[in-house]
This record gives sequence, structure tokens and C-alpha cells, in this order.
Amino acid sequence: MNSPEAVKPVITYDTSPAQYKHWSLACDGAIATLTLNINEDGGIKPGYKLKLNSYDLGVDMELHDALQRVRFEHPEVKTVVVTSGKDRIFCSGANIFMLGLSTHAWKVNFCKFTNETRNGIEDSSRYSGLKFLAACNGTTAGGGYELALACDEIILVDDRSSAVSLPEVPLLGVLPGTGGLTRVIDKRRVRRDHADIFCTLTEGIRSQRAKEWRLIDDYAKPQAFAEKVKARATELAAQSDRPSDAKGIALTPLKRTIDEAGYHYETVDVTIDRAARRATLTVKAPAAAVQSKIDDIVAAGAAWWPLQMARELDDAILMLRTNDLDIGTWVLKTTGDATLALGADAVLDANRKHWFVRETIGMLRRTLARLDVTSRTLIALVERGSCFAGTLAELLFAADRGYMLALPDAPAEEGKVTLSAMNFGDYPMVNAQYRLQARFYGEEGPLGAVRAAIGQPQGADAALALGLVTATPDDLDWEDEIRIVLEERASLSPDALTGMEANLRFGPGETMETRVFGRLSAWQNWIFIRPNAVGEGGALKVFGSGNKAKFDWNRV
Amino acid sequence: MNSPEAVKPVITYDTSPAQYKHWSLACDGAIATLTLNINEDGGIKPGYKLKLNSYDLGVDMELHDALQRVRFEHPEVKTVVVTSGKDRIFCSGANIFMLGLSTHAWKVNFCKFTNETRNGIEDSSRYSGLKFLAACNGTTAGGGYELALACDEIILVDDRSSAVSLPEVPLLGVLPGTGGLTRVIDKRRVRRDHADIFCTLTEGIRSQRAKEWRLIDDYAKPQAFAEKVKARATELAAQSDRPSDAKGIALTPLKRTIDEAGYHYETVDVTIDRAARRATLTVKAPAAAVQSKIDDIVAAGAAWWPLQMARELDDAILMLRTNDLDIGTWVLKTTGDATLALGADAVLDANRKHWFVRETIGMLRRTLARLDVTSRTLIALVERGSCFAGTLAELLFAADRGYMLALPDAPAEEGKVTLSAMNFGDYPMVNAQYRLQARFYGEEGPLGAVRAAIGQPQGADAALALGLVTATPDDLDWEDEIRIVLEERASLSPDALTGMEANLRFGPGETMETRVFGRLSAWQNWIFIRPNAVGEGGALKVFGSGNKAKFDWNRV
Repeated sequence: MNSPEAVKPVITYDTSPAQYKHWSLACDGAIATLTLNINEDGGIKPGYKLKLNSYDLGVDMELHDALQRVRFEHPEVKTVVVTSGKDRIFCSGANIFMLGLSTHAWKVNFCKFTNETRNGIEDSSRYSGLKFLAACNGTTAGGGYELALACDEIILVDDRSSAVSLPEVPLLGVLPGTGGLTRVIDKRRVRRDHADIFCTLTEGIRSQRAKEWRLIDDYAKPQAFAEKVKARATELAAQSDRPSDAKGIALTPLKRTIDEAGYHYETVDVTIDRAARRATLTVKAPAAAVQSKIDDIVAAGAAWWPLQMARELDDAILMLRTNDLDIGTWVLKTTGDATLALGADAVLDANRKHWFVRETIGMLRRTLARLDVTSRTLIALVERGSCFAGTLAELLFAADRGYMLALPDAPAEEGKVTLSAMNFGDYPMVNAQYRLQARFYGEEGPLGAVRAAIGQPQGADAALALGLVTATPDDLDWEDEIRIVLEERASLSPDALTGMEANLRFGPGETMETRVFGRLSAWQNWIFIRPNAVGEGGALKVFGSGNKAKFDWNRV
Repeated sequence: MNSPEAVKPVITYDTSPAQYKHWSLACDGAIATLTLNINEDGGIKPGYKLKLNSYDLGVDMELHDALQRVRFEHPEVKTVVVTSGKDRIFCSGANIFMLGLSTHAWKVNFCKFTNETRNGIEDSSRYSGLKFLAACNGTTAGGGYELALACDEIILVDDRSSAVSLPEVPLLGVLPGTGGLTRVIDKRRVRRDHADIFCTLTEGIRSQRAKEWRLIDDYAKPQAFAEKVKARATELAAQSDRPSDAKGIALTPLKRTIDEAGYHYETVDVTIDRAARRATLTVKAPAAAVQSKIDDIVAAGAAWWPLQMARELDDAILMLRTNDLDIGTWVLKTTGDATLALGADAVLDANRKHWFVRETIGMLRRTLARLDVTSRTLIALVERGSCFAGTLAELLFAADRGYMLALPDAPAEEGKVTLSAMNFGDYPMVNAQYRLQARFYGEEGPLGAVRAAIGQPQGADAALALGLVTATPDDLDWEDEIRIVLEERASLSPDALTGMEANLRFGPGETMETRVFGRLSAWQNWIFIRPNAVGEGGALKVFGSGNKAKFDWNRV
């Protein structure tokens, strides 16, 4: 397969358990086991072998898919045990030769998707009662340990050789950049001097000391390992409120067509203007009232509009991110009947305790959060026929700017913005604040005003006064103004925009996730283009060659 | 003057009001005016002119010095008005041609010092009742606006041309990277879509709209400007608890000698092992009991040990950072009598309400915080004759690791670690947590144990059990173990260490300052080495040449 830039589109995220090359998913009552047994010849690109259970983007796509299957197809699962099918090795992390062959953009996008998948593990633990146990039955290194860190608990085999380690700094001259440095500190609360030793120790740390330093939760001799894992998985399952007797929802393949114009789904459409380096994503409100009784909702399954829309939007985001690097601006649009969109929100709200509705809200939450951390300019346009209502209005609040056509004599809901209860807490960003809360810095004045407007369609003047949109040109100015905004944006340095947007989208109030996407990723991106890592004598370049890295010793 | 790497040492931070080329300081009762009137031929390096009140490191050194003078020499000052001596221009930010000529390391270190000086402005506002008013009497662009943002309030002249602006992204393809993006969001709480427009608008925003968007606090016509500034400065002064009738303390020049071995002061000594790329900083406890009565303390002035030590340590940090980029490891040592060091702490604690003692504690706080954000490995060694007691023990807690020689039969205080009340809140890091609090993640168990140990010298076993040190080799192992630690550290990629240390030193709990040093600086560092900024056709390179920047449009 060629580089993702060469042929468009090359990469899709389509897979299913029957197609997995690297993972297998086995469900046994409340406990599912996800087993990593990487096919070293199954890399998503040519040029490297995935030895020692090391992974590339293709492996992570399968993990992402498997997690989705557990969430939707196996509601009876309460604990997921993550383990390895190889002897004496759990996972050795991202494949280093793959990293050495990859472009900077590929590395960065790969890390972002990996981060999102791991955050998704924690998201399901926090919101859906799905617990994760890393059963590290062998060497657990680098990205392998970072995967374990994303689980609720870590049990390591005590076989006198298996260790957990983050050898990126000493071996490769880069960071444990998919959450490793952050989770060791933020989540595991390893003391910083211990973390400093751990992160510079190639061989890692074993059993008792690893537990003392909080790097793992427990360890067991090989003969007792399986039993301990099972016992702990069962205990974790007891904390879960997932249903024991529900029937799963099949995640049928997405109906997507790809053509020169873009990516087309039933509820989402992406058209790409390559000359303008701009994509337009249009999300469609339900065409009819969504199923509102639990039996009907479950019967609709993957075709239930809220889930179908979330899956299609999520896929569109990933397709654009992976295949269309130079499409720097995404215009976000909506169409359809606001009454039907708000009706869908009312059903989500009323049935949120049902496992399937809860999972659907979770899928919407993670998809919208994926949009927030996307390194593309997001401009929302509220026009005639737009449907920025309730959940769909989150697209407006996720955007860097929102422009609204002033239509003074429009009918009641034509091109207006309408809020629902779902805009007030169900879809937190990675900073744990919902978008309107972050937009108004939690200030009671503007937040109270928008809360009071729930359910009432807001025309341009009102939306502007409430602070819901950035500007409201009228019919005369609209076309020119939007054209100028988009052209000006497209003329700016893509790197400066990436840095600017990453800083402006998240204000005060941080979480482990914002530190992963902000501080850690930004440092890793920096290191990923430094000669000390990727130059001729850089550590990442010479790895495996037998040569020593040559460093410029100046500190920056 | 040559590049700082070429001749050692080249750059010192020594200056005084009589030597200023760019700033002037005028005190009038409670109000001081700091006026920026940059001598365009007074750059600290050759090759550029500081036009339009644009600055380089030399200008910022003077600002740093002037702030110190206000803090110590002018205790009667309650409000500092920051303004410009030039017509129609307040400040246009960092000099772009200087940036274009500078090495990556120089740019990054320059930005760090600038950030620290601006944080110092806010530190004095928060802790010392010293208020700052930016009187923007003309164009306030880029770093000029970032300086204004560090002040408590901003008043802009409304002359139909003067605007505040952050034109870095559209003009230069880099970020407003000395706090601009962060303060607009975190401090000023500008709505993110407004911030997005503002940060992409070359010409900036004027008067009324700037106030509506919270970019400034107020504006005034030219004829009313001086009066409004004075009135507001007077109101701010009324909030201050600085004394009206105290006599200042002269900040006499540091007694520093420089030789091949390093930098030598009375209370601090720096020896540099260039082959090992390692510096040893030794801080000396007071040689006799410090003055303890206010009159004696004030009479001692700059020779009072706590202030002298803080100033000398601060200077040593800056000298090493600026002149010795390849000295990647700093070994932190202390010597002297713990009883005298703890005695000094008791005096600081008992007299903290006196303005001079408060300022001295502030100087210690900022100096230790400067250490935390230094991109060098910090290893503390507790040995025979060490004096890690009270304030001096902060050096141990600031270190990435602390090793302590096990001396089982040592006399009462020989080479032990002793805590004082000053270790529990007086010296917060930039994350607003004190070092022991951050070390133990605020957990009551270990924090309670160390609090209970205040005043009691802890030997190696006890210090290890309390979690105060990382490891405690005995006499037989000490030399080999420390040698190996230092050699191994010196073999690692300097960039990977910089990224790792920046992530591990600050755990959960973030502030505006951590976001400036973490997220914003990391992104800016990345952009500062991207071809889109500094490559042949990069925006920073072609600025002023009349050529348009050539971008690689791929987003990362």
C-alpha cells in the first residue's frame, strides 16, 4: 500500500472480528477476553514486520473495532481482559521500523488515533460500567504498557523476566507519547523521581518493585496468573451495571460510497473542494421521527438515527483525517427538520438509562470529542434549511467560528438554532466541560441565558446576543463574507493554525486527556522532527542498525 | 557580540537603571511608570535593528531588572504603569529579524525568560499587592500585547488607529508564544470564536470592540488618556497593602567571579565539568545566624542571607541556561549548618508580613520556580556536610531525583534532611502546588507523615521511608552508583529528556502558567522548527523580503 497521500482514498477503518489479523475477541458471560497475537506480516503498509507483538495503525483499527463490538454487540460483558496470545510477551509497543519509515504527519495522526482509542477505554469505564483489566502475561513495553495504563487495573506475570517498561527515551530518543508519561503521573500517581527512573530504564521494572511504585496493581506467578486474572476480572464485573441478559445490537457495515467528490453516507455527506483545500461535512437530521420505545429502538439497532449518524460522522472524521491531509478547513453544515432532531434528543434524554441508549450517547460523546481534537479549522455555517438543533448544535459549538445567515422574515424554525437539554452536560469535551460551559467559562450570566432558551428556536439576532454564533451577515453580504473567511483561513500556515486551534479550543480546566493531547503530544511532535530523533544519526533512525545515535548535546 | 555558544561566558543579566538603554523607571509616590523607548541600535546581538519598539533579550533583561528595583528599592510603589515613550506605538513585540537570525535554542530560551518575567508581574500582583496597568498609548502588537496581558488591566488609546493585535499566525506563521494564546483564553476569558478571529487578524482590534471582546479593560481618547490612566492607577494603588513610608533596599551588584571552572558567588558556587557536560551547583547555608530583628534585617539589605542566596542562585540559573546549553545535568548540593539554615527559615516565617521579608520570600519562590521549568536534568545529592534543611531542602524536592548517602553512625545533623514550615506552602511551583504536595499528589498519608517530621533531622533510612529521597546508597556503593547515574543520564537524547522532564515534573493540577510552559511552549517549539516557519520559504524567514511564504499545506 502506498503512502496515504499518494492515492486517495487509501485507508479505511472498516473491519470486523471475522477480518481481524491481530486481535481476537472471545466473550464468556460477563467477561470478554481481547487477545493480541500480531501477524508480523500483516502491517497496514509495506516495509516492516510487526515483530514481538508490536503494532501499527492497522492493529489499532482492530482494537477500536473490537471495543465497539463489546460496547454494542455484547452488552452482557462487564469486564474486558486485555492480554496476549504470544509466549512471554504482552506487547512491545508501536513498531519502531514503521515509525522510522513514516512521515511526520503519519506518526502524529497514528498517535492521535491511538490516544483516542485508549481514552475510549477509560470513557467506557467511566460512563458505561465497562471495566478493563490488563493481563500482562509477558514483556509489557512502550506502547504496550501505555495500553495497559489505559485499563482500570494491571496484573503482571511474575516469571523473573517479564517487566513493564517505557524505554522510548533511552532506546529511541522520543517520548512515551501515547499517554505514557501522563498516565504514569496523573492516573497511577507514581512519584516523580520513581517515574524519572522508570522512564529512563530500558529493561523496565518487575513484580514487587513495580507494585510498590504503583506501576502495576498486582502480580502473580505463571501458574497462578490465569486464576488471579479471572478472579479480579470477576470482582471488577461485580462493580458494573451493564445488563446480564440483554441482546446485542449488530454493528452492520457502514453504507459508504467514495467518489471524486468525497465520502457519502446516509446521514452524513462529505464533499471535498481540492482546489480550495476545503471539505464540507453535512449532517442530516432524521427524515422521520426516530423510534422512541425501547423495543423499537433496539429493533432499529444500527439503523437508529442517533447511532447511525454518530457512526457515519465518526467515520467521516477519520477518513478525512487520514486520507486528506491538505484539506485544512472543514465547513460544518446540517440540514433537515429541527423538530425531528429535537425529538431524537428527547428520546435520548428519556431513555438514557437503557444500556443501548447510554452507549449511543457515549458514541456521540466520543465522536464529538474526536472533532474537538482534530487538527483542521472547523467553520460552522447556519443557513436556510440548516438544522443546528440539540445534539446537532454541538457541531456549531465545536467549531472555531460559527456564521449564521440573518433571515429576518424566516418562518418559525427556518435556519434557526435551537438548544436541548442534551447541550448541557451530555457531551463533555476532553477537558470534562460541555461545550457551552467552556464557551462561556462557566459564567452564570450567559449560561443561564442559554439554558433559559432551551427549546426555543433562535433567529440570527437572538443567537448573536446569546453568544451562540460569531457573526450574522445578511443575505446581501453572506456569500462574500463567507468566501473571504474561508479564503483567508486557507492562506495561513497549517502548522500555526494547528498550534493556535489546539490552544484556543481548550481554556481553563484541564484533565489527563487534555494533557495527553496538549502538553504530551505537543512535546512529542517537537521531538518527532528533531535531528536527535529523526536526523541521519538520530536515535529513531539508527535503532536496530547497530550504530549509536549521534546527538547534538545542546539543551533546548 | 557573537552567538552565545561561541565564547563563554558571553551573556550576563547584570544591569541597573543607570545602564538601561530601552526602559526608564520613574517613581512618583505610589505610582511608578515604566516607559519603553527602545534604542533601535541597542540590540544584544548584531544584525538587526529594534525598530517600532520591538524587543530582544536585552530589553527583557532590563524589564526584569526594573521589576526587581520596584519590588525592593521602591516599597512605596503600589501601581506600576507600563507605557511607551514613542509616538503612536506601545510595543510591536519581539523583533522578527532577531528571531529570523536566532538558533532554535536561543529562541526557546529567550521565550522562556520572557515568560518568567511576565509571570513575575502576575506573581507580584498576587502575592505582594503590586498592581500593574498597561497604558497602551499606541499600536500594541504581538509580544507587546502579551506584555499588556500580563498586567492586571489594560487601557488602550482610542485614536482611530491604535489597536491591540496578535498577528503572529497570519504574518509570521508562528504562535503568540509568550503567553498570548493562553492569557487571551485563561485570563481575559475572551470567547474562543472571538479569540480565533483576533489571532488571525493582522490589523488587530480597536477601542470599543476590543473592550466588548474583553481584550482590553478600557479605552480613552488621546486627550483623556493620561488622566484616565492616572485615575485608574490610583484606584489600583488603593487595593495595595504595600507600605507608604518604608525605605527601600538597594540591590547592590552581585559579587560574581567567572573563570574556567564556573561561576562563583558568596553563597552559591557553580563548577562546570565540560567533558562530562555537567555542572555542580552548591548552595551554602548562612555562615552565622541571620539577622532576625526587622531593623537588622533591613540594615543587612541585599546582604541578608535569604535574599543574597536567592539572587545568586537566580543569577546562576540564568547564566547556565544562557551560556552553557550543552551542560545537560545540574547536580544540586548544599553545605553548611542546618541549624543556621533552619534559623533563617524561622525568621522568614515569623516576619513574613513585613514588606521586605515578603519580597524576599517572593524572590525565593520565583527562583525555585525558575529551577522547575529549567530544561536540564536536576540531580540532588545529600552527602556528608550537606544542608538540605527547610528552604534549602526545596532544591531536593525540585530535583528529578535525590540520592542520599547512608551514614548510619553520623552525628545528629550530619548529612541529614530536615523540613521546616517553609516547605509546606510558601514556595509553590507554577502549578500552584508546593513541591511536597505535588510529590505526594496531595495524599494525606505521606503528607501528614512529612509534616509531623518538621524540625527533626532525618537520616537516610527515615528520609527514604518518608519518600523524601529516591535512593540511599551506602559508603561502599555511593561513588560508583552516582557516577553511573550521571553517566547514563548524560548519554540520553537531550530533546527526549527535555520533553520527559517537562511532563514528569508537573502532575495533575494545572494553572495558566503550566499551560504557558507546557502546552503553548511545546507547540511553539514545534512550530519554530517546522519548514513552514523557518524553512527557505517559511513565513518567519521571508518576512520583510516582499516574498510570500511557501507552505506545505498538509495538516499535522
